[in-house]
Amino acid sequence: MRPSGRELNEMRLVSIETGVMKHAEGSCLIKMGETHVLCSATIEDKAPPFLKNTGLGWVTAEYGMLPRATNSRNRREAAAGKQSGRTQEIQRLIGRALRAGVDRSALGERQIVIDCDVLQADGGTRCASITGGWVALRLAMNKLLKTGAIVSDPMIDHVAAVSCGIYAGQTVLDLDYAEDSAAGTDGNFILTGKGRLIEVQMSAEGATFSRDEMNALLDYAEAGAAALVAAQKAALG
Amino acid sequence: MRPSGRELNEMRLVSIETGVMKHAEGSCLIKMGETHVLCSATIEDKAPPFLKNTGLGWVTAEYGMLPRATNSRNRREAAAGKQSGRTQEIQRLIGRALRAGVDRSALGERQIVIDCDVLQADGGTRCASITGGWVALRLAMNKLLKTGAIVSDPMIDHVAAVSCGIYAGQTVLDLDYAEDSAAGTDGNFILTGKGRLIEVQMSAEGATFSRDEMNALLDYAEAGAAALVAAQKAALG
Amino acid sequence: MRPSGRELNEMRLVSIETGVMKHAEGSCLIKMGETHVLCSATIEDKAPPFLKNTGLGWVTAEYGMLPRATNSRNRREAAAGKQSGRTQEIQRLIGRALRAGVDRSALGERQIVIDCDVLQADGGTRCASITGGWVALRLAMNKLLKTGAIVSDPMIDHVAAVSCGIYAGQTVLDLDYAEDSAAGTDGNFILTGKGRLIEVQMSAEGATFSRDEMNALLDYAEAGAAALVAAQKAALG
Amino acid sequence: MRPSGRELNEMRLVSIETGVMKHAEGSCLIKMGETHVLCSATIEDKAPPFLKNTGLGWVTAEYGMLPRATNSRNRREAAAGKQSGRTQEIQRLIGRALRAGVDRSALGERQIVIDCDVLQADGGTRCASITGGWVALRLAMNKLLKTGAIVSDPMIDHVAAVSCGIYAGQTVLDLDYAEDSAAGTDGNFILTGKGRLIEVQMSAEGATFSRDEMNALLDYAEAGAAALVAAQKAALG
Amino acid sequence: MRPSGRELNEMRLVSIETGVMKHAEGSCLIKMGETHVLCSATIEDKAPPFLKNTGLGWVTAEYGMLPRATNSRNRREAAAGKQSGRTQEIQRLIGRALRAGVDRSALGERQIVIDCDVLQADGGTRCASITGGWVALRLAMNKLLKTGAIVSDPMIDHVAAVSCGIYAGQTVLDLDYAEDSAAGTDGNFILTGKGRLIEVQMSAEGATFSRDEMNALLDYAEAGAAALVAAQKAALG
Amino acid sequence: MRPSGRELNEMRLVSIETGVMKHAEGSCLIKMGETHVLCSATIEDKAPPFLKNTGLGWVTAEYGMLPRATNSRNRREAAAGKQSGRTQEIQRLIGRALRAGVDRSALGERQIVIDCDVLQADGGTRCASITGGWVALRLAMNKLLKTGAIVSDPMIDHVAAVSCGIYAGQTVLDLDYAEDSAAGTDGNFILTGKGRLIEVQMSAEGATFSRDEMNALLDYAEAGAAALVAAQKAALG
Repeated sequence: MRPSGRELNEMRLVSIETGVMKHAEGSCLIKMGETHVLCSATIEDKAPPFLKNTGLGWVTAEYGMLPRATNSRNRREAAAGKQSGRTQEIQRLIGRALRAGVDRSALGERQIVIDCDVLQADGGTRCASITGGWVALRLAMNKLLKTGAIVSDPMIDHVAAVSCGIYAGQTVLDLDYAEDSAAGTDGNFILTGKGRLIEVQMSAEGATFSRDEMNALLDYAEAGAAALVAAQKAALG
Repeated sequence: MRPSGRELNEMRLVSIETGVMKHAEGSCLIKMGETHVLCSATIEDKAPPFLKNTGLGWVTAEYGMLPRATNSRNRREAAAGKQSGRTQEIQRLIGRALRAGVDRSALGERQIVIDCDVLQADGGTRCASITGGWVALRLAMNKLLKTGAIVSDPMIDHVAAVSCGIYAGQTVLDLDYAEDSAAGTDGNFILTGKGRLIEVQMSAEGATFSRDEMNALLDYAEAGAAALVAAQKAALG
Repeated sequence: MRPSGRELNEMRLVSIETGVMKHAEGSCLIKMGETHVLCSATIEDKAPPFLKNTGLGWVTAEYGMLPRATNSRNRREAAAGKQSGRTQEIQRLIGRALRAGVDRSALGERQIVIDCDVLQADGGTRCASITGGWVALRLAMNKLLKTGAIVSDPMIDHVAAVSCGIYAGQTVLDLDYAEDSAAGTDGNFILTGKGRLIEVQMSAEGATFSRDEMNALLDYAEAGAAALVAAQKAALG
Repeated sequence: MRPSGRELNEMRLVSIETGVMKHAEGSCLIKMGETHVLCSATIEDKAPPFLKNTGLGWVTAEYGMLPRATNSRNRREAAAGKQSGRTQEIQRLIGRALRAGVDRSALGERQIVIDCDVLQADGGTRCASITGGWVALRLAMNKLLKTGAIVSDPMIDHVAAVSCGIYAGQTVLDLDYAEDSAAGTDGNFILTGKGRLIEVQMSAEGATFSRDEMNALLDYAEAGAAALVAAQKAALG
Repeated sequence: MRPSGRELNEMRLVSIETGVMKHAEGSCLIKMGETHVLCSATIEDKAPPFLKNTGLGWVTAEYGMLPRATNSRNRREAAAGKQSGRTQEIQRLIGRALRAGVDRSALGERQIVIDCDVLQADGGTRCASITGGWVALRLAMNKLLKTGAIVSDPMIDHVAAVSCGIYAGQTVLDLDYAEDSAAGTDGNFILTGKGRLIEVQMSAEGATFSRDEMNALLDYAEAGAAALVAAQKAALG
Repeated sequence: MRPSGRELNEMRLVSIETGVMKHAEGSCLIKMGETHVLCSATIEDKAPPFLKNTGLGWVTAEYGMLPRATNSRNRREAAAGKQSGRTQEIQRLIGRALRAGVDRSALGERQIVIDCDVLQADGGTRCASITGGWVALRLAMNKLLKTGAIVSDPMIDHVAAVSCGIYAGQTVLDLDYAEDSAAGTDGNFILTGKGRLIEVQMSAEGATFSRDEMNALLDYAEAGAAALVAAQKAALG
């Protein structure tokens, strides 16, 4: 029995609202149940220095969390004077995942920065950031296409992410915080719209897992990602 | 003529929505036109070390801005590795202003941390933070009173803040970004519900100002603060 | 009764000695009673990057305090690894105040850096820094005029600063440390030689103040600033 | 055809030499071909504060790389003033992997710190660090058992890690730098002596992968980890 | 011929003025020609943690330089966010030198912090800091003796420092900046009042030196230190 | 009697193994008894900016120590976020010493970086770093000569360093950790192959020393350096 009463393979309610930030080239507020992430895309005219004269563009991401997004207040990273290892790991993951869905040659020598800021957290913030970040990126690309800055669409396919894990001995889909903090094994799966794998991160602390369990989680992940891709499509109209 | 077409003494639309953050002891989203600030209050059981055994509590504030709250993207302070001088100046101001409305003896040896995070900026973010931060603080105090953790209300009076300035040679109330960035003189006035002054910060860069102008701005500030106090009351129901 | 026995509107003894630093383009040691600040001006051939090709110059300031300038030793900011929020707030104030007295177009694309280092502190260090910093700036401008590097004098007017406050229920001028640390309300007023206002910063922590008190403090500030401008003139001979 | 001429499922030569650091409670130099990592274990009498009075111990890891371990010199992280996101991500992984093989209750309230320093790098440094770090940890545990500080062995099982990936369209085992830098997909698999999974990290940048490929890589990983466990046993005698 | 016209073995004019900082437990302004250093001593009731329950005290030093103490402005270390390697090296030297003249057992478990701040620099600032720092330390010890906090004098002997070097092929005493910046070999000698050696630091960049030259410099150093000790005595009256 | 049983003027066993790092342009592992330092040389095509258009090259050094090189674990400097004052002082010393043996004009506008990383420490790590660093530098220069990048050899003479001190009242050569941590006076002498002095650093904490002792230590240093130069020659074949 899951704390939320959900079925083992049942996801939380997903909602994606676009156009929520006046200044950004693309933006959305994604809600996976009580996890709320504000995602924005910023187009920069230059690619990073290491891409100079390669004709390739770049997509990168930054991740943050409001101090009181969580049940007890977290110290503000700007006040602490650095981003935690966890934050850096997450933002590297978001950037890597989104780049897997982009033809950087079609983008040309420019950079798109995706900012994912967690307003409220209840587990799965990095997955929500990837799924919502993709929508913001898509909107920014639309803008570039509309103005003629680029001529062929650099977006290869949808990118969506979902968490899976083993909670109380059972495989579950889309863990919330109550499950996440108690799971023996959990991880994130990032897939394309066609169901191909971009990234698999399964991790056990204490309780190891078998290949059979790994396979069951992959089945869940495929179904979950498909649902998220459908939500992305619906949000973009 | 103001860029927004407003009268010289006309404020922007104010809206304050409470209870927007699930985990916080008090929260609101304040909108002053296109300036949107998310404010939360966190109750901590201990006062800062310098108050140990004094019987006094503390109210402090932290301020942040999402990278794409502004027209062009700002570097994330957590990534830069420090809070800017501007950020520190603002959060010191918010804390100081809110403390002026609190009886720290009635609060007892605990601390309330007000987080003000700007989701979207269009001028006047520090004033909005103070006005909204006061609402979050009020809600947290209500919670302490309700649970019996404190018995007499530490809130002495409302605290509200408004910006005034001299734009295109004319005194104006509640500057938006277009005015703020072009004003010869501008500043912030923080007042109580009874109209007493907590803080006056008028600053000219280049164009100095006279005592007559100072007096005119004080008149505007009194009217503006009164309107904000009314909005606070309406939001709290 | 003030701790020092001074009248309510009586300033401390002011002395300004010029030419005290061999290497600087302008320098002075200003003493406001027991508050001693060493001020120097450095001329740099380039303006900051944001002014490139604008024809405008810049005046900026840095502020520091020797660890044992105060009654108990303060940690050295260089050892702490950063300037405190207070330091940054003060040096931004000094720079802003001095720029209000300068025609940056007449200065041309160069920068003058004013360093204000407190050798001994007894309240009012930021006001002394502004008043003394202006003298160092004036001397550096004289040097530029003398060498022909600039042809018209960029100095528009004197700039002087004085603190005022409400101590033991009475309005007082030029607070020393004993008053400053106990005052319910205090602030700084920066004025030009002609008595126009550049900056007003009044702040109450706990005890709020009325418009009548605000007006009384403005009266004091005008008198105090006039006395400081006279001292600047005397020092420059 | 692999750059090294190895078969697709052929690992590099593995050697593990123990007792190489005079001062450490456990140490080894592990070589995976031209990748050389020096691993040491330090026993600390206290567990980290968050474990106080839980009866549980902790195993943590730190990772570093000599500036000239690589083909072109890397900036020393101590000189740069911080550990990179990559370094933090790796050391978190090493610690998490090793803890999965430890009964922290049997260890009691003490901490073992594993330092993994790469003397020479040719791909796969994080896997070598885990495999070698386990040996250093085992030796330190032996010392605790020998002195009677602990009575039951906290080591549950071996922990070993190996990289797999898709290079030039073919699945390969134990990538060296030439393969790693060109692979479309690669990742790390951490397994126990009994072949259960601790962590799976597969990542594609650009070229996504199928479930069939995922399965083939898992087969390689099981074989590779078994070989590394055998090398650990041989080194420990 | 030296740039200043001095004889090879001629020191600059030395002056030491005591009691120049109102708040410090001991202070002086030492001038070695155009090099001016403000030295203060702060008594702290506790020794550093590593001396707890040893009965021993500690003397430490910090060193700083005003940005415009030098011919061209140096970046403020507090703004740069750290003390340079040079600064740290100097302050470690000052502390070590002064401790060599103190019986830390007679001092008891307290710490004296010597702050040496260079107001104006013309070579030899670290030597001036040691010689002046000793005077500030002596005054602070006098205060401890006078109040009865300590009963036997911890000061074993005078400590004074002087620079020597090889300039234009000739051995010279007490180098000023013009010599220092051009010398092939130079260094610092720290001696006691009885002429025993505390520290010798001779360094050649490019031009090496012989034992005969080393001996000649030691002769100069003995004479120079004796003159400085006489100046210390005169200043203390 | 020395803890190791060595004669007063007896050095530890010295071994220098070259070519130990695959990627470096020059490398060696130097062992002075139980002190082991890995030294590498990296050739960079550009000199530092301050040498632009001077025709001169540069040699610089960085120093590090593995956390468990010592008896108790030291905090990793990269994790602490900065290099300690001690580390900076040592690496400045190494660079200065090596430059004294190089004709920077013959080197041309390029830089050689010497990295010295202590794998195991038992006293005298800075001396071992200099002696071993010189060998790595020599090898890198050989490579430049071989490829014709430079035509005349920039290496003027050998550079070697040895520690001497006063332990238990007796002058001793090449202190190990047991002696170093207990010595009243100790220091480092850096000499050329011809026996000329590059740097002398003698320091007493508590126990001062006489000129006779200074002379005795210089005698030891000359003999010790000669032995190290012989070892350098043997290692280079």
